Amino acid sequence: MPIYNAPTKDLQFVLHDLLKVSEQDIAGYDDLDRDFTGAVLEEAGKVATEVLHPLNVVGDKEGCVMENGVVRTPTGFKAAFAQMKQGGWTAMDCDPEYGGQGLPYVMNTAAQEPFVSANMAFNMYQGLTHGAYSAIHAHGSDEQKQKYLPKMVTCEWTGTMNLTEPHCGTDLGLMRTKAVPNDDGSYKISGQKIFISAGEHDMADNIIHLVLAKIQGGPEGIKGVSLFIVPKFLVNDDGSLGARNGVTCGKIEEKMGIHGNATCVMNYDQATGFLIGQAHKGMRAMFTMMNEARIGVGLQGYAQAESAYQNAVAYAKDRLQGRAVTGAENPDGPADPLIVHPDIRRNLMDQKSFVEGARAFTLWGAYLIDRAHRNDDKDAEGLISLLTPVIKGFQTDKGFEYATAAQQVYGGHGYIEEWGMSQYARDARIAMIYEGANGIQALDLVGRKLTQDGGKHVMAFFEMIKTFIKKNDGNEALKTGFLDPLKAASKDLQSAGMYFMQNGMKNPNNALSGSYDFMHMMGHVCLGLMWARMAKAAMDALEGGASDTDFYKTKIATGRYYMARQLPATSMHLARINTGADTVMALEAANF
Amino acid sequence: MPIYNAPTKDLQFVLHDLLKVSEQDIAGYDDLDRDFTGAVLEEAGKVATEVLHPLNVVGDKEGCVMENGVVRTPTGFKAAFAQMKQGGWTAMDCDPEYGGQGLPYVMNTAAQEPFVSANMAFNMYQGLTHGAYSAIHAHGSDEQKQKYLPKMVTCEWTGTMNLTEPHCGTDLGLMRTKAVPNDDGSYKISGQKIFISAGEHDMADNIIHLVLAKIQGGPEGIKGVSLFIVPKFLVNDDGSLGARNGVTCGKIEEKMGIHGNATCVMNYDQATGFLIGQAHKGMRAMFTMMNEARIGVGLQGYAQAESAYQNAVAYAKDRLQGRAVTGAENPDGPADPLIVHPDIRRNLMDQKSFVEGARAFTLWGAYLIDRAHRNDDKDAEGLISLLTPVIKGFQTDKGFEYATAAQQVYGGHGYIEEWGMSQYARDARIAMIYEGANGIQALDLVGRKLTQDGGKHVMAFFEMIKTFIKKNDGNEALKTGFLDPLKAASKDLQSAGMYFMQNGMKNPNNALSGSYDFMHMMGHVCLGLMWARMAKAAMDALEGGASDTDFYKTKIATGRYYMARQLPATSMHLARINTGADTVMALEAANF
Repeated sequence: MPIYNAPTKDLQFVLHDLLKVSEQDIAGYDDLDRDFTGAVLEEAGKVATEVLHPLNVVGDKEGCVMENGVVRTPTGFKAAFAQMKQGGWTAMDCDPEYGGQGLPYVMNTAAQEPFVSANMAFNMYQGLTHGAYSAIHAHGSDEQKQKYLPKMVTCEWTGTMNLTEPHCGTDLGLMRTKAVPNDDGSYKISGQKIFISAGEHDMADNIIHLVLAKIQGGPEGIKGVSLFIVPKFLVNDDGSLGARNGVTCGKIEEKMGIHGNATCVMNYDQATGFLIGQAHKGMRAMFTMMNEARIGVGLQGYAQAESAYQNAVAYAKDRLQGRAVTGAENPDGPADPLIVHPDIRRNLMDQKSFVEGARAFTLWGAYLIDRAHRNDDKDAEGLISLLTPVIKGFQTDKGFEYATAAQQVYGGHGYIEEWGMSQYARDARIAMIYEGANGIQALDLVGRKLTQDGGKHVMAFFEMIKTFIKKNDGNEALKTGFLDPLKAASKDLQSAGMYFMQNGMKNPNNALSGSYDFMHMMGHVCLGLMWARMAKAAMDALEGGASDTDFYKTKIATGRYYMARQLPATSMHLARINTGADTVMALEAANF
Repeated sequence: MPIYNAPTKDLQFVLHDLLKVSEQDIAGYDDLDRDFTGAVLEEAGKVATEVLHPLNVVGDKEGCVMENGVVRTPTGFKAAFAQMKQGGWTAMDCDPEYGGQGLPYVMNTAAQEPFVSANMAFNMYQGLTHGAYSAIHAHGSDEQKQKYLPKMVTCEWTGTMNLTEPHCGTDLGLMRTKAVPNDDGSYKISGQKIFISAGEHDMADNIIHLVLAKIQGGPEGIKGVSLFIVPKFLVNDDGSLGARNGVTCGKIEEKMGIHGNATCVMNYDQATGFLIGQAHKGMRAMFTMMNEARIGVGLQGYAQAESAYQNAVAYAKDRLQGRAVTGAENPDGPADPLIVHPDIRRNLMDQKSFVEGARAFTLWGAYLIDRAHRNDDKDAEGLISLLTPVIKGFQTDKGFEYATAAQQVYGGHGYIEEWGMSQYARDARIAMIYEGANGIQALDLVGRKLTQDGGKHVMAFFEMIKTFIKKNDGNEALKTGFLDPLKAASKDLQSAGMYFMQNGMKNPNNALSGSYDFMHMMGHVCLGLMWARMAKAAMDALEGGASDTDFYKTKIATGRYYMARQLPATSMHLARINTGADTVMALEAANF
């Protein structure tokens, strides 16, 4: 049985030592003092470890089952979901007008991490609902908000996102699902959607499907896509449930992982749907959900790696194999624990330095979203728009890589389902795919975000790094281990950007052939920046006489590892990028 | 349903254009003319595609089932195994004295690839038997050879390797399985072994277990380990089967993949065992199996990536999403196929250039083994001893990475079991673990192989690269794209070796902290060398007027990609290595 302990102290470190949330001039942030966030995270951690984590393996083994159109979630999920609702965990950052607690997004994100680490498949039921809530909140009419949001805030009703169809995922312009206007202003929705997470289940009274469809006679392609609310049960004006709508689950997919979440084929057969926002502007509304969802998926990436890492450490301390090459460290035992061996440490340090860097990056992203939304800060909005594909793409690639690396520490036991390490790898794998496969994230980053607003945001990003380095120039403790490598990595990233500018004009393939490398490079630079800042924060805490010196010293040592051993990846990515499209595009399709 | 086509042409290219096997002065190689190897590979490919490949998904879905101690393999396995026996595929490179065909190992290895690509789990039954055959052949008495080998050559009886116990895998000195001498020279074996592939099944009349155990009263630790033959059914002197021996399957493990192979807990309860070779020299005998097995596992790595790649290409050509940024390439269709997009190509070229490079590397390794064994060439033996951990460790890491990358091309469909891409990733994952987890391969490489015989073999390896570069110095077509990058990568590798020498003395952790990076670095240099040689061979073929110009030009273009885009990884690995042990070993175990 795998273990899980909520990293409350680490989350607190990011919120307070790094982001200094309670000092920020953002509406609602003054409530986020150390005691308050500590109490929330403590409680979230308790729910995660005691309620959700024990159901993780259960969910994987049992999966969801469909019988006569009814989908049954795994044993214990229903009761746990009731506990989540009751604890108000689904409503933390929702609008108080609809029953939410109105807490900042950064607080919600921090509290989500333990839930996702403990049981990713389970947490998706609430995660999807939150995304659907956000889209209706941002684009729905007042009437729609009044009708659906209060029950979605509490997760009495859950939500879904319906984009993909059998023949199209990324390219939604090819969509075939049709919407035919009724006389009363509603629409008849017909078509098939696939890969619908939480599409059907037994944990909520109603399911509010958000469905992309094309209104008959509208523009061709992506410009003719509209977004609709299609409730499983129609909702009467008094809020009570009415007739069963024409939407059914056709089947549940058998997947590599996240078995606890029902991934459904959804069939819409003249289902009644209600337009959200303007006709043919569905993509814009959908992106409200998507951007938030992408940060959430980036969190899944590192949160799964965190769980896997915790288990790998426990195993490495417990399992006796071989002797330290520098002399026995457990001389009275038959062998030393795995953790004495340099290559095991190399592996564990890779995992640890990534996870802690990614946690900081993700919460910084959440903070930027708060700054954008609560303070209407356009610079913050531009910056998080730039960083979102990196948080999603880089962190889920690395999250899977390190979940797999954690599995490796177990040797053969890592491959046996009984030990639970396979599940972390299998579950983490989906995060690289959904909410836009990582190749699409890279395309979004290089093809759109870099040049958005005339490249203003990426320049601000580089400026931010430069300013940080300059400001700490005299800090010798920070210089060699942190500032110098950050400077070098940032220079590599700038060179790559320069290469794109100079060579992408004459042939855009020169830029797009390097998009994936650029995304990874930028991920490293972001984590490098996070680590430099965290090291500074930890040094400040130590200088300020913080009592938990071990904790802060460990932070600095972990950061040093990242800067020394992970950041040099930027030079490899730059070398790849600098070769342009020539070798990438050389072959005729027939010769693959 | 996934596809698979045997890459006969590519195998032929490696055997003849690259290795020029029929020109080599090695006993038995004069038979290996192009027509002969072509006929063998054609037939092997046919068996792989028509018989084994259709059972791959079946094996994954059904798995092996144990009822009342009897293990049932998946539907169709038994008939397919009978076909493999009948076709003589299990006996290709075995000793004619025991019914083998006596073909070179390189021929056997080439023919194995399609079998492994088509159905890895299935092929393990025969693979393990071959390993057990080799150990008995090398270390058994004449009587033992006469008794067991003929039936193992035909796979009427299969074989297993029993090393791991619940509390020890890598550190076999901790082993608890005991051997107590009987009066007749045999032993009573008692203990439990785990992770025994093909430990029990219904496809053979007898199973010959090779079991490591400690003879009572022998030396402590690894020096007291001996190797025993423990047949499932004792074999009478006339070759007929006698009494059931005291060995039983306790359970079958549930694993992440290779479900078609029965991974067994084997219980030995005073089972009769027969010592192979000398008492307490079991590890040496076992390593005969292990070294061969490691090449075989390295082959599994790229062979799974090959299968996954073939499917990814087919999907990328078929699936319509988006438009080429340089203008529609399928203007009459609703969208262009995925393969027009640079990032899809980047992904496919990564896979293709790895697989083809690894194929060359593996067959070169098999050729070196032939040279060592058949010509008693000590230099070849030293070189393959050096390269074995690289073939195993590098190729299985990359094989899994690219099986996962191929899965990514499918988007959401890659995560659904129905499409079969998940199985390639799940199956490939084990190759990083068994036959010595890849961290152990790295340790073997840096801790033992680099310094073996005074570093003679690694110096010969560098010399070989240098000579090749020098010899082709005037070849402009080869210089920029191949020789220069090979030189740079080789220099990086030498620098890393130098770092180990200079810093490993004062602290061995400085070397061991970089062992994993060194293994990867060396893998890249080996594939770089293979690609430079393949490019040369392809250019020669074109100059010689070869008719299939597309094939050879594609080889050169694929090689260019590898040199430009994969080889720069060496600089990253060198940078990591050069930071030594400081950041790797910085933390107290308690602070992980």
